[in-house]
Amino acid sequence: MNSKLQWLRNKMNSLDLQGIIISNPVNIRYLTNINAEGTLLITRKENIYITDGRYIEHVHSVLTLFDEINVYDIKDLSKDDYENFFMFCENVGFEEHYVTYAKYKEYIRKYKINNLVETEYIIEKQRMIKDEEEIHNINKACNITDDCFKYILGYIKPGMTEKQIAKEIDEYYNERTDGLAFETIVASGENTSKPHAVPTNRKIQEQDIITIDMGCKVNGYCSDMTRTFFVGDVIEEVKPIYDLVLKNQLQTLEDYKDGANTRIVSKMVENDFRLNGYDFIHSLGHGLGLEIHEPPYISYNNDTLLKENMVVTDEPGIYIPGKFGVRIEDTVQITKFGCIKLTNSEKNYIII
Amino acid sequence: MNSKLQWLRNKMNSLDLQGIIISNPVNIRYLTNINAEGTLLITRKENIYITDGRYIEHVHSVLTLFDEINVYDIKDLSKDDYENFFMFCENVGFEEHYVTYAKYKEYIRKYKINNLVETEYIIEKQRMIKDEEEIHNINKACNITDDCFKYILGYIKPGMTEKQIAKEIDEYYNERTDGLAFETIVASGENTSKPHAVPTNRKIQEQDIITIDMGCKVNGYCSDMTRTFFVGDVIEEVKPIYDLVLKNQLQTLEDYKDGANTRIVSKMVENDFRLNGYDFIHSLGHGLGLEIHEPPYISYNNDTLLKENMVVTDEPGIYIPGKFGVRIEDTVQITKFGCIKLTNSEKNYIII
Repeated sequence: MNSKLQWLRNKMNSLDLQGIIISNPVNIRYLTNINAEGTLLITRKENIYITDGRYIEHVHSVLTLFDEINVYDIKDLSKDDYENFFMFCENVGFEEHYVTYAKYKEYIRKYKINNLVETEYIIEKQRMIKDEEEIHNINKACNITDDCFKYILGYIKPGMTEKQIAKEIDEYYNERTDGLAFETIVASGENTSKPHAVPTNRKIQEQDIITIDMGCKVNGYCSDMTRTFFVGDVIEEVKPIYDLVLKNQLQTLEDYKDGANTRIVSKMVENDFRLNGYDFIHSLGHGLGLEIHEPPYISYNNDTLLKENMVVTDEPGIYIPGKFGVRIEDTVQITKFGCIKLTNSEKNYIII
Repeated sequence: MNSKLQWLRNKMNSLDLQGIIISNPVNIRYLTNINAEGTLLITRKENIYITDGRYIEHVHSVLTLFDEINVYDIKDLSKDDYENFFMFCENVGFEEHYVTYAKYKEYIRKYKINNLVETEYIIEKQRMIKDEEEIHNINKACNITDDCFKYILGYIKPGMTEKQIAKEIDEYYNERTDGLAFETIVASGENTSKPHAVPTNRKIQEQDIITIDMGCKVNGYCSDMTRTFFVGDVIEEVKPIYDLVLKNQLQTLEDYKDGANTRIVSKMVENDFRLNGYDFIHSLGHGLGLEIHEPPYISYNNDTLLKENMVVTDEPGIYIPGKFGVRIEDTVQITKFGCIKLTNSEKNYIII
């Protein structure tokens, strides 16, 4: 059995769970490397993956005997099969943050479960701490992101549309990686004031501000980086805000380390923004791995402590509605003594 | 208030619901045109949309006074605000097939709801029947899909990779539409035996079989079409299977009409396949609209009756593991007397 499934079985023991139903495909991929639609059951004696005809071939191509996972086609399972899986199990865990209320009721009925127990993100919590292979993949995705950003700075010319630039980034990624980690954001001019801008047909001007938020996937693992930069010259009006965002982005890199409280780190940025007359309208950062947004969420809403080998973003931003916005973001690995930047593109005024 | 929200209020009346919480963003888009993250509350007196700083600008740009929707930033809402929204509401509906078990418990606590009631896909059921504007959008997406397929037939040459062809389709769509309805499938040779193949670096051969499953979005609405075709000449071994799939695809077009039972239509295809020695490993079709897969689901697992102005796919397929597969799919609109094909690409042997 692989080390991640072994970890889960130990964890279940300590929680007095005799079985668990894993429904979240990302958690299933994390535990088994299977990238399909289906359900993973950990029962007293077996690891079982239930899928359908569309995925049987893929699943068999991914698994080895070593995995000790029995694969069933959903078509071949009877009412009795379902009722037998968790027989003599007192407590069976489920993912209450993924499973819908309707599915929850269905599970109880179909598997005849006495006690279907909330498991409070046990797998997501484990996923926060990356192992060597996971960090290797994220780092690779970050390196390609740095390369792509460098390439795109040379590519952009006044007259091009935001869509055209986004397309070029997407192609760069598609040729070299598993694809995009999320929809690439290319915002220019007043569009930079929208944190979640979607690329439009707006053309880049001679004197312009551009924000690009980009990331790709390598072996399923994501990267995430944002830069705000200028065409022709730095816009005077933007300077003080750029400086303020950058100062806080760099200070946060100093603050990120094993043991740091995410609420306090976020509060410091928010306070500094507010002292200067600006609001901080989104969170400071988030974990990333198989998903582009995953725990820990770094904001003043929670007191998570950062831990060694978490991989998170640091992305303060300020947005002046209808005018412009500035966001600067890196992906970093938390260590005992600080953090290691995995994205390393220029952050001082970038002018193209 | 727009006609869709008015419909919902009437429906709520008839179900004795004094309030409802809409969480599924697709249902929110359907009802309000808002394409963001947030929650829609229909209370006794008000329509309320709760979102956060990232989307406030977008939401205000979409809504007009006519919509009668009050927008709140989640940051500005107090514990009391939440508890007041559904005050004096006996029954409040929620989307049990979308809302997680954890959220369900949170809603009860946060809104102080006495009776949080399952609503059994009321909005999805309404979404199955498309109005004129929706059909117009789907039809436009289908026309562009036909055009794109014609273009790509001229583009494909032996030596190109599946990925390269998929990229060309994606670019065609990205230049003309809101983008892809789903990840384009380009499978060749033995890869066609996987119904959910992901484009690889396999190169197209001189004598080859290719399956392309493609679709785009226009104003949020999807198209979906699949063709299996040949390079150089029709492969003899494939012919009888191609003929069998096509025969059933055409027969299904005959069977699709207002009142048709989806189980029976599917069973007929399954039986014919089985009589010829083949399994039918996926469902015959699905509804599409704002989502690429939405009710009705057309398979032998359910007895839905087709209704006028549903828009669904007809996509039988046969897959010989490790060898090849054939799938032929159209998007069609159901009418009182039959169905109207919205995708119209060639279906007899296509040879490039």
